[in-house]
Order: sequence, then C-alpha cells, then structure tokens
Amino acid sequence: MTLKKKPTTGMRDILPREMEIREYVLDMIRKTYKSFGFDQIETPCVEPIENLTGGHGGENEKLIFKILKRGEKLRLAEAKEEADLTDGGLRFDLTVPLVRYYSNNSAELSSPFKAMQLGNVWRADRPQRGRFRQFMQCDIDILGEASNLAEIELILAMTTLLGKLDFKNFTIRINDRRILKGIAKYCGFNEDQYDDVFIVLDKMDKIGADGVKEELLSAGYAQDAVDKCMSIFAAQDLSEGADGVGAVGLDRLSDLASTLGDSLEEGVSDNLSEIMSVAADSSATEFKILFDPTLVRGMSYYTGPIFEIAMDEYGGSVGGGGRYDTMVGRFTGQDTPACGFSIGFERISMLLMERGYQIPSESKKVAFLIDKKCTADQVRSSIDQANKLRAEGAHVSVMRMKKNKKFQKDQLTEQGFTDIREVFND
Amino acid sequence: MTLKKKPTTGMRDILPREMEIREYVLDMIRKTYKSFGFDQIETPCVEPIENLTGGHGGENEKLIFKILKRGEKLRLAEAKEEADLTDGGLRFDLTVPLVRYYSNNSAELSSPFKAMQLGNVWRADRPQRGRFRQFMQCDIDILGEASNLAEIELILAMTTLLGKLDFKNFTIRINDRRILKGIAKYCGFNEDQYDDVFIVLDKMDKIGADGVKEELLSAGYAQDAVDKCMSIFAAQDLSEGADGVGAVGLDRLSDLASTLGDSLEEGVSDNLSEIMSVAADSSATEFKILFDPTLVRGMSYYTGPIFEIAMDEYGGSVGGGGRYDTMVGRFTGQDTPACGFSIGFERISMLLMERGYQIPSESKKVAFLIDKKCTADQVRSSIDQANKLRAEGAHVSVMRMKKNKKFQKDQLTEQGFTDIREVFND
Repeated sequence: MTLKKKPTTGMRDILPREMEIREYVLDMIRKTYKSFGFDQIETPCVEPIENLTGGHGGENEKLIFKILKRGEKLRLAEAKEEADLTDGGLRFDLTVPLVRYYSNNSAELSSPFKAMQLGNVWRADRPQRGRFRQFMQCDIDILGEASNLAEIELILAMTTLLGKLDFKNFTIRINDRRILKGIAKYCGFNEDQYDDVFIVLDKMDKIGADGVKEELLSAGYAQDAVDKCMSIFAAQDLSEGADGVGAVGLDRLSDLASTLGDSLEEGVSDNLSEIMSVAADSSATEFKILFDPTLVRGMSYYTGPIFEIAMDEYGGSVGGGGRYDTMVGRFTGQDTPACGFSIGFERISMLLMERGYQIPSESKKVAFLIDKKCTADQVRSSIDQANKLRAEGAHVSVMRMKKNKKFQKDQLTEQGFTDIREVFND
Repeated sequence: MTLKKKPTTGMRDILPREMEIREYVLDMIRKTYKSFGFDQIETPCVEPIENLTGGHGGENEKLIFKILKRGEKLRLAEAKEEADLTDGGLRFDLTVPLVRYYSNNSAELSSPFKAMQLGNVWRADRPQRGRFRQFMQCDIDILGEASNLAEIELILAMTTLLGKLDFKNFTIRINDRRILKGIAKYCGFNEDQYDDVFIVLDKMDKIGADGVKEELLSAGYAQDAVDKCMSIFAAQDLSEGADGVGAVGLDRLSDLASTLGDSLEEGVSDNLSEIMSVAADSSATEFKILFDPTLVRGMSYYTGPIFEIAMDEYGGSVGGGGRYDTMVGRFTGQDTPACGFSIGFERISMLLMERGYQIPSESKKVAFLIDKKCTADQVRSSIDQANKLRAEGAHVSVMRMKKNKKFQKDQLTEQGFTDIREVFND
C-alpha cells in the first residue's frame, strides 16, 4: 500500500516555478510559429514498434522504451526474444512520427504542409546531469517545398522566437551536405567512405585540425586525400567576423565553390548564399549566420542545407535542422521535399531558469485568508471580490486562514503573492 | 523499410483543425485555472509499476500499458510471469501521480497546494467509437484545505471555464458520500454491504427506481431495508427546478437530513447547503447546482462531497470530482485533506468540434505565392511585408507558387487563408 515517492529513474517531477517558465516558452513557440503559418499537429506517444526499429533513428533505436503486448497476445512461455513480447514503443523523436502522419493523412493536409509538433519523447539513455529520459521536443517542418523558401522561413521563425525570448548574440552555423560531399569527392575519397569521413570532420571544433588529420590518417585514408582535405579547411578562416552580425563567410563560400569546381553540384553555393543573405536581411532579430564547412550534423538522412544554433552562453548547440528530401519518399514511395528544424526546448528553458528570467507582464497574485469564524455571507463577499480581481487579470486564491498565520503569509509571499488580505468576522 | 501508416491501435493522429480547437480549450483552461490560483505541474508519463498496481486505480489497473525492462535487467529466460518483465507503466490517471508528486516534493510546495495537471493518460480499453487508448486529462486538485472553500473554488473555477467556452444550461449534480452512508445506515444495511448497494443506486438514472429495487432484492438484501431505501428516494423529486438556475434542492436536502437523524454525520447537510448556495451566488456563469442523493461516482476513495457536470447536449457527464481526505495519508503516512476535479477535455473538445465552434478573434491568414522567376530581392521584399503583417498579429506563410496555381489557391482558401498575394517578376 506504500508508494514509491521518487519518479521513474532518469525522469523527473517539474515544480511550479519551472513549469511557469516552460509554459511561457511553449506559449511563445506556439504564437511565433503560428505567425509563420505553421499548423500544430499531434501523434500518439506510442508508435508501432516496426516504425521505431526500421533504421531511421540511428543510435536512438537502441534506446527505445518498449511496450509489453497485452492479454492473449502476450505469450510468455513461447517468447524466444524481446521482439516477441512487444508491439509498440515510446517515440524517440518527432521526425519518424511526422513522416508516418504525413503518409497517413496527406489527402487532408495542405501543400506545402507546415507542421509544428510540441511533444515529449523518450530515450533510455544512461542518466546524467541535465539529461533526462523524458524530454520535450519542439519541431517545425515544411513538407512539399522544394525551394529555399523553406530554409529561409524556418530560420526566420526560429530567430524571431529567440529574439522574443530575449536571447542575443547567437550564431547560426550553416553548411550543405552537398558541399561536404563535394569536398570529399574533390579530395579523392571513395563514395562509400564519405559518411565515415564526415564523422571525423564533425570533431573539428573539439579536437582541432591537427586532431582531425591524425584521426583520418590513422583510420587508413590516403595521405594525399587527407592533405587535400586539410588544405581546404586551412583556407577557411572561421574566426572571421567573430563579433559581427548578418551573413558572414559569403566570400569564403564562393572561394570554396571555385576550388571544388566540378566536384560540387551546380547551384549549391548560390542557393546557400541566397539563404544566408535573405535570412540575415529579413530578420527583426540580430544574429550572425556563418558559413561553416565543418558543420556535419549527425543524422545521415540530410540531403541539402544543414544548420545549427550556437549560443555563447550555453557553449553548445541549442537547436538545429536541415533538408531531408529523400526520407519521406523512402517511406511513402512518393518523392516529397522536406526541411525541418528542432529547437532545444529543455536547454532554452534551463538557460532562462538559470538566468532567473522574469516572465514579462506576469499577473498580480492575490490571496484571501478567511478566518474560520467567518459567516457564509462573508465568504460570499470575499469570493465576489476575488472574482472581480480575476476578471481584471489577477491570479487569486481564496483559502482558510491557518493557525500559524505568520508562517502561512511568509510562505505565500515567497510564492509571489504580493497582496494578502485577511478576512475576519468582526 | 516501409512504414506502418496507421497509428497504434486505439490511438489517433490529430489534424490541424481539431488541434486548433484543442489548443484553444487548453489555453482557456490554463488561463482560467491560473486566475483561481492553481499552479501547473507535471509528472513523467511513465510511473514506477508498483505505484500503478497498488490497488488505487480500481478497474484501470487491468488496463495498464506496461514498459519492458531494458538491458541486463530483462532476463527473458528466467521470467516466469509478466511482473518479471516490467518495471514501469504509462499512467492511467493523474491522481496517483499527483499523490506521489506531493509526497516527493511537499517541502517545496505551498499549503494549501493548488495543482493543475494537463496531460495524457493511457488505458488499454477495448477500442470503441469516441473512446481512445491515449487521451488528455485536465485535473485541478487542492491538497491541504479541509474547509469547503476547496469545493467552492473548484466548482467556481470549472463553471467559469465552461462559461468562457460558451457552454450554457449545464447542471452540477452534487451529493456527499456521507449522505449515501447515512441512508444505508438508516435503512439498516450492513456496513460491509454499503459499497455494493451504492453501485446499484448509481444505476438510478439508467434503470429507474423500480429497476434499482428489483436489483437490490434479487441481490438478497432484506425487504425491509430495500423498502426504506426506496421510500427515501421516492420523497426526493429530482425533476424539481428542471429549467431553473442556482441552488436547487436545498429543502429536499434538509428534509432528508431530518429523516436520517442520527444516522447522518453531524454538519454534513449544512456543509453541502453552504457549498451549493455560495457557489450558485458567486458564479459569473449561470448554471444549476442540484442536490442529487442518487449520485455515487465510481471511485471508492471519495470521503465527502462529490459532484459531476451534466450537459443536456452531451447526455452524460463531462467532468466530475470530489473530496478524498484519506488517500494522501494512506500513501504518505500524513493526513492531508484533498479535493479534486477533472474536466472531460476530450468530450468538451468534441462537442465544440461538432458544433463547428468558431474560435473568437482568430488571426487573419495571409499567403504570399512567389513565382519561381522572382529575384532574391523580390523574395526579400515579400518576406519584409510578411514580417510586418506577422508583427500586427497575422499568420503569414511565404511559399513558392505552384504550376497548378488555381488548385493551390483553392486549397489555401479552404484552409482559411483570406488574403492570397501573388508575386511575379515583372
């Protein structure tokens, strides 16, 4: 009959103060993304197990919380392996469910379809500080828009959002998967080596150019290819425009395109330039958008521009996304260009909490403490006053006065009640 | 590599139009409940399995979606029964998690603690029309308030909410578990028969007084007790005040209290009268609050006043709650009075959908269709105009003009875009 007090391992209870910040951020996300024409949608938290284990989730597929079959379908005695016991799992991201949703409902959806999803996902990761097994993801995706208007609208929506949440001095690092491929091709790597080479390149900001070189060589790639690759990155000065705003690195981008020549798909460099300059010019929020040929992003499903938000304050990425034009088609059999962005909701909320962020225009908090000797008419009168204050926008709580009135009032003050009214029968 | 298109059995994808209504209702719930001083909180969707199977969930404990153990902890070869395979489950309600949350965090919570929880719950029910295996619950609970201010504030919060959602002509049926016990005692039933008798009484509105009488007799209860019981209900005219508003049945309540005499706990009738009259007088929304001694409500954990919202339109309950003063103490070892209310979010949203509810002050929807021959400068200029409109509150989408422009425009019009601007390079 006793209860386990602690929440499930790796998951957590959220206290009122943090909830206020989270709900404020969510509200801002909803309003901002809606103003950019995104429609909110929802899918079940439980996905059919085959959709989670089809190879589109990368490492996340090892971290699924699986659901036990129920009733007659669970045949424990005959079960030989885990797969015999389960028919569903908690979703580990919102991309796989989005693709399923799109293929299930496309007849009723607009084209392009601009989707906003705000929902929990679950990953049975090793528990560690600041990382939880249940967390919120907030994704926007545009399906069916082949032009770079998709990238531009996604970047503007997220930078507008960050501006509204008072974030300043952030950088969008941007690259294109096809530029990475162009570099690999130019250097003479084999096509089946590309993804492995990218994984090493991705470590550039952690282990530096020398570290990358060493790792590539010790992995057995040709000296010649590695040298060519390193000379390309040596020609790119990523410290350029360190304190600048706007589009930074357009010249470097065009230099790189000239160097790569035929190795780079046509139009890729112009497309990326246009995204960078239109986004930088059109945003109400000040930010830097930096061409960064070392940006890789993990998921192999990206096919075009990729981007990530870096924030000095945080020292890491607080969101990212990119174009994935082939994923929907592989699932549905029908080619559908797609581009998405996911903001790091948990990190953003944590940063605001740590900063002691004050929510603008927070409502006044009023408490009525009713002495127990009060008559029903006095209670009625207090409630009437409370209702008037509520109609004016205040948050009002009517409660019994406790024996230890001083403690009660101190506690209320601590919780932000600035107006405490005592009601006696006198 | 192919994807299962349909969502998990018994669960569903939610389309944009329905999401708009749901989000509107949720937003109204948050704002209204906050104005009554409720603090939003959140618990993980996954609860430790022992908390879900401890006997507090009634029938729901048979409907748990259980989570498979992971890694080394899953020992399939040694597993003898289901319990060996699972360490968690999806919560089937928000009450059990609330009690765990309160016992885990009470040092950091106010007293009384007014909690608002909006979250999904899961029940592996037999799938049927309008009933899903994942659905939202929206609960408010007051922990630590022994006086009837708790019931009054809960009733006012929910009636204010329903008024804001344009619901009219609803009735709150109200009773007290102790009145039911008083009746059973007066009639001479044995104490261990009470709960079973209540289950039969609960069918009064479905099978009528004759049906109840028959069922009680055929269950073997004494003719004398059954006759006494039926005469009590015969004296209560529940059709009273059929079209009325305000507190209805105060005289019937006091007559019943006189009849029951010593069988009824002292103060119960006055307490209920006060809740009814103060709530009826103080609400900005017009409704009827009807004393209904046939109201039972299923869960056996209720200890005092119980209430339920009936809506003619729906023909059933769209929410209910009551006082459960002993449940928290049984879990935590410390007596804590508690009272809660759960609104039928899914039913409310469905009623609004069926009605074709128009969300008040919905934003204007504008689309820019950009011809593919446009220059980057023309795109920039359209985006600038879009940003201005966004700042004025419009929802604006900038997209590439399609070859079949007429179809594209028709589709946009259908989705509520009232202002479609075509941008050409001319």
